[in-house]
Amino acid sequence: MAGKIKIGVVGGTGYTGVELLRLLVQHPDAEISLITSRQEAGTAVSAMFSSLRGRVDLEFSAPSDAALKKCDLVFFATPNGVAMQQARALYDAGIKIIDIAADFRIKDIPVWEKWYGTKHACPELVAEAVYGLPEVNREKIRGARIVANPGCYPTAVQLGFLPLVRNKLVDLKHLIADAKSGVSGAGRKAEVHTLFAEAADNFKAYGVPGHRHLPEISQGLAVMAGVDVGLIFTPHLTPMIRGIHATLYARLNGDVDLQSLYEKTYAGEPFVDVMPAGSHPDTRSVRGSNMCRIAVHRPQGGDTAVVLSVIDNLTKGAAGQAVQNMNLMFGLAETTGLEQVPLMP
Amino acid sequence: MAGKIKIGVVGGTGYTGVELLRLLVQHPDAEISLITSRQEAGTAVSAMFSSLRGRVDLEFSAPSDAALKKCDLVFFATPNGVAMQQARALYDAGIKIIDIAADFRIKDIPVWEKWYGTKHACPELVAEAVYGLPEVNREKIRGARIVANPGCYPTAVQLGFLPLVRNKLVDLKHLIADAKSGVSGAGRKAEVHTLFAEAADNFKAYGVPGHRHLPEISQGLAVMAGVDVGLIFTPHLTPMIRGIHATLYARLNGDVDLQSLYEKTYAGEPFVDVMPAGSHPDTRSVRGSNMCRIAVHRPQGGDTAVVLSVIDNLTKGAAGQAVQNMNLMFGLAETTGLEQVPLMP
Amino acid sequence: MAGKIKIGVVGGTGYTGVELLRLLVQHPDAEISLITSRQEAGTAVSAMFSSLRGRVDLEFSAPSDAALKKCDLVFFATPNGVAMQQARALYDAGIKIIDIAADFRIKDIPVWEKWYGTKHACPELVAEAVYGLPEVNREKIRGARIVANPGCYPTAVQLGFLPLVRNKLVDLKHLIADAKSGVSGAGRKAEVHTLFAEAADNFKAYGVPGHRHLPEISQGLAVMAGVDVGLIFTPHLTPMIRGIHATLYARLNGDVDLQSLYEKTYAGEPFVDVMPAGSHPDTRSVRGSNMCRIAVHRPQGGDTAVVLSVIDNLTKGAAGQAVQNMNLMFGLAETTGLEQVPLMP
Amino acid sequence: MAGKIKIGVVGGTGYTGVELLRLLVQHPDAEISLITSRQEAGTAVSAMFSSLRGRVDLEFSAPSDAALKKCDLVFFATPNGVAMQQARALYDAGIKIIDIAADFRIKDIPVWEKWYGTKHACPELVAEAVYGLPEVNREKIRGARIVANPGCYPTAVQLGFLPLVRNKLVDLKHLIADAKSGVSGAGRKAEVHTLFAEAADNFKAYGVPGHRHLPEISQGLAVMAGVDVGLIFTPHLTPMIRGIHATLYARLNGDVDLQSLYEKTYAGEPFVDVMPAGSHPDTRSVRGSNMCRIAVHRPQGGDTAVVLSVIDNLTKGAAGQAVQNMNLMFGLAETTGLEQVPLMP
Repeated sequence: MAGKIKIGVVGGTGYTGVELLRLLVQHPDAEISLITSRQEAGTAVSAMFSSLRGRVDLEFSAPSDAALKKCDLVFFATPNGVAMQQARALYDAGIKIIDIAADFRIKDIPVWEKWYGTKHACPELVAEAVYGLPEVNREKIRGARIVANPGCYPTAVQLGFLPLVRNKLVDLKHLIADAKSGVSGAGRKAEVHTLFAEAADNFKAYGVPGHRHLPEISQGLAVMAGVDVGLIFTPHLTPMIRGIHATLYARLNGDVDLQSLYEKTYAGEPFVDVMPAGSHPDTRSVRGSNMCRIAVHRPQGGDTAVVLSVIDNLTKGAAGQAVQNMNLMFGLAETTGLEQVPLMP
Repeated sequence: MAGKIKIGVVGGTGYTGVELLRLLVQHPDAEISLITSRQEAGTAVSAMFSSLRGRVDLEFSAPSDAALKKCDLVFFATPNGVAMQQARALYDAGIKIIDIAADFRIKDIPVWEKWYGTKHACPELVAEAVYGLPEVNREKIRGARIVANPGCYPTAVQLGFLPLVRNKLVDLKHLIADAKSGVSGAGRKAEVHTLFAEAADNFKAYGVPGHRHLPEISQGLAVMAGVDVGLIFTPHLTPMIRGIHATLYARLNGDVDLQSLYEKTYAGEPFVDVMPAGSHPDTRSVRGSNMCRIAVHRPQGGDTAVVLSVIDNLTKGAAGQAVQNMNLMFGLAETTGLEQVPLMP
Repeated sequence: MAGKIKIGVVGGTGYTGVELLRLLVQHPDAEISLITSRQEAGTAVSAMFSSLRGRVDLEFSAPSDAALKKCDLVFFATPNGVAMQQARALYDAGIKIIDIAADFRIKDIPVWEKWYGTKHACPELVAEAVYGLPEVNREKIRGARIVANPGCYPTAVQLGFLPLVRNKLVDLKHLIADAKSGVSGAGRKAEVHTLFAEAADNFKAYGVPGHRHLPEISQGLAVMAGVDVGLIFTPHLTPMIRGIHATLYARLNGDVDLQSLYEKTYAGEPFVDVMPAGSHPDTRSVRGSNMCRIAVHRPQGGDTAVVLSVIDNLTKGAAGQAVQNMNLMFGLAETTGLEQVPLMP
Repeated sequence: MAGKIKIGVVGGTGYTGVELLRLLVQHPDAEISLITSRQEAGTAVSAMFSSLRGRVDLEFSAPSDAALKKCDLVFFATPNGVAMQQARALYDAGIKIIDIAADFRIKDIPVWEKWYGTKHACPELVAEAVYGLPEVNREKIRGARIVANPGCYPTAVQLGFLPLVRNKLVDLKHLIADAKSGVSGAGRKAEVHTLFAEAADNFKAYGVPGHRHLPEISQGLAVMAGVDVGLIFTPHLTPMIRGIHATLYARLNGDVDLQSLYEKTYAGEPFVDVMPAGSHPDTRSVRGSNMCRIAVHRPQGGDTAVVLSVIDNLTKGAAGQAVQNMNLMFGLAETTGLEQVPLMP
């Protein structure tokens, strides 16, 4: 393309925002035009995030439609419920949009409204939005004007289940996703339960009766299968900063070479790595990278498939996948700016 | 009883050993007579574990049958395979024995030999040994001369499944135990994979194709059910020091009031706490204590029960349960010396 | 004494509060009569702190002078600035008081007002209050009606410097205390900088230009020395839950047997453990206990003493020392209820 | 230069090795020709380090002079004492050498032999070797055939002290460096004291009587000052994976504008960032990057300078600085391949 992509970031003060900035400043075809934050307007970005000293010279600016409309692309790295208020005007002005929050992920508006507890402000754009999981929707994303970037758990779980569900090889009514997330998944909000002294040296489940990512995952799996699915989704909080580990259980309908199935499904995918048979991926093997690593097991040769799927919740689970979607939307090589080697140890 | 229980600890240099010492020095009816370690003979216990300075004046001594035979009770806090070598002589001398390792846990000798990779040295005492899970075997433990103290995962998983399995309320062929352990569960051995820089800020499954605790759990559940069971057991390593969180899945056969079932089953149990409906126990709520806390869920009112069960792997999962068994074997109140309040935060 | 000490705890929802409850429920001579929290009135204590399930049956109650005046002793486990509002009335009613916060620690009122940024509400009780560091003020504490419980850093630093400063063996104008604290020292407040994802896998200094504990430490050292001292105090935040490690530097005036000096100074002290020459105490060796462990070095035989002093900031640095002071004030053995063995690992 | 630099890495199985690989695979002018490991010969590098799957296709190979002599540059990422055995032959063959271990750092051979406990195998190359701290020795490094890459603590401490010491603004006989390191500094060796369950939730000093980095730092400071210096160096282990925080104390001889001094000294340095007055750098602000961030304070306007200096011990403290030295030795822009943005959070 001619010239760099002019980018606006709405809401750059959270973990998704700072991760997006980390990736964009290293992206050869991206130019960050503005970063908005109502609360921090006037503060230098590098004063809040010293990791960006010398790399980002912008100040946070107050949100302004006029400035955003000069961009080619606007990322929403905002809390849920913000993008749906501002997307219409940008969309109408021809600006491409990637919402890293949840406003455009769920097609069934009443379902969205039930789980997010508010009326949707812009249902007509939900229909228009493409769910930004490239391994499922690559072609649609290329042509999209608005992309709903998937949630972190939904990315790990859907990529793990995809080969089984798309091919209807398992009991689709009784899928189980036991997922574990690092604490950054809760965001950069002042709350007691995510304090170091609360979350360190501790492990707990949460949201077992119901979590907002359940309907998002169920919708995605139903699209793959062509029928509704039944899913138990159990998220847990684990004392690490970044990373999601999804352990998936599904009852096999018959015999199948799982290793081969997974390898074939993901052959050619730049950001899904099917590990050798018998492997146990660890979350740090993807730390700071856009990779999803998957291993598949069939314990004791029984009728249950156990899939292990790991991502970095802030990268493939949020900002990295958003950049991957940007690359697709702007006709760039999909891996542009996303080849960071995971930080190990 | 008249006088304190004279206690020998074989192998006191691991985490189970130091936890056992922590509990015994606070136990009003226990007197530690000797602590053996072939490798550390002559070293003051408090020189190795500064937490015990001023509390344990003994040195590690070389293992000696003569000295051990002056004890009333010998704990084996040794690696697997040691107790089975030494138990016969002590048993014949009338010394009571609690093996905190795995030598006497599995009744089926070929199964044990397959999973532990060695020939069993003392199969006849396996038949004699009582599996030391007081919530299942309390009366037998009272009369036991040799107790096989359960493993950490098996304790958390069996207590979590017990009400469902004993009453055959679930599909016994497809039980799933997704379990997460703190790193102390791997013991105080110099190994790369449990180094801080390997295990911190990381999460991974291990042993998915098969883990030694699988046959132990299966045996216990089969005893409860009266029939064989099918179990998928997936252990994970989580970056915390102590604690196990077992997330259990079972398909219900019919309708049942799970909360009431669990509360009734464990009414009167001093070390099982059924939490209020809707709870999510965290591992730190039992840190350093002998308590197991359990919550039971039925997500979306479906046909799957989800049970959350937490213990401290070194206490209820090892040394604390061993002391609980000692109390039973010596006619003491079961909670004697085990009323530590969990350390929070 | 006849009967148990009736205790009121004002402000029981913070880390100091829950630690105090942990200790008091195990104290043979203490009876918790009420625990107040304006915000949580009506909530069961064990609903907020599940570690106390089955151990504390009280609900938080709204603060009430009438109820507090039925107590023998009131602990303030409140933020700074609360105790000074309520102490007068209790004091006049003959209730003994231990303030675990900072309201009564600094004798020089303008100094206190400068560092705490508010006018002192009760300066006359400051004069009356005894600084509750038993190793310095044991006899005064026995007779005290109001005790100012020392801060966490001040406890570790003063105990570390005491033998050098009291005997004027070092350059008193150039003392250096480089101190490191676990994150629980910041309290159970919802703040961004102490979130897990901010504080984990990170280390930083803070308050280098000036920290509230500086004047408290300086005052204490000046009392020991009989002259003013000069102190550089550098606090750091380290990614652990509990624990303070103070590394102290002082220039020696002449030759002295440091090891012998420290051992003699603290001979007989139940809660100060001078370790063998060459030792490096670790914070976990005092985790959950009221012990302070100290080692003293003279690197390369030079003229600088290096003292290493560790405590658990919530125990000897707060609630444990408060109970130690209670024991003294009520004529109990000083170690009553404080003999917990540190939790290791 | 024409073509890529052909690189050999001797000893690629430790943390320095894997960090070096992470940097080299992203370096536009580097080509990794071989990676040796006697023990792991034949193992795929990516089988040991799954973070490198798809990025490094080599296997570890047995050390071989012939293969190494085909390289342009050989890095030693080996334990101390290895490079000195192999360097001579490579040097004579005209291969450039960067030793990331300690064999060539200390010019005074008896001092080296005392601290490293062995006879030096190659003292004549010690004289030839250039100490690879670019901020001090940039021009010499450009022309060097063998570079002694500085230690991690020495890098953080020397960069922190440099402006004060070079200008003799402080009492050079009484410098204090209180330094804190993440656990990866101890290397990827199976040892008990760096196990997760030992090092997590814990803080301790070590090596207070003497640490091998003391003579290295003293030598560097003496070169800066032109006279011998007196230094107290106190290393501590802190529960994080990466990062060093050095807190430095020095008595000022007179008045000086410290902020201006530091800013002027490091103006133009690509990898030293002097933070604004009043700052407290955190180690995570340099995580995974080659940056050193420094803040300078003068508490209470007294006569003591307090300098805070942070680096990533594996990057600027080891592999990153080695790549920086490579860039200088091969005439590349100094920052080539080293512009990773720190991973935050």
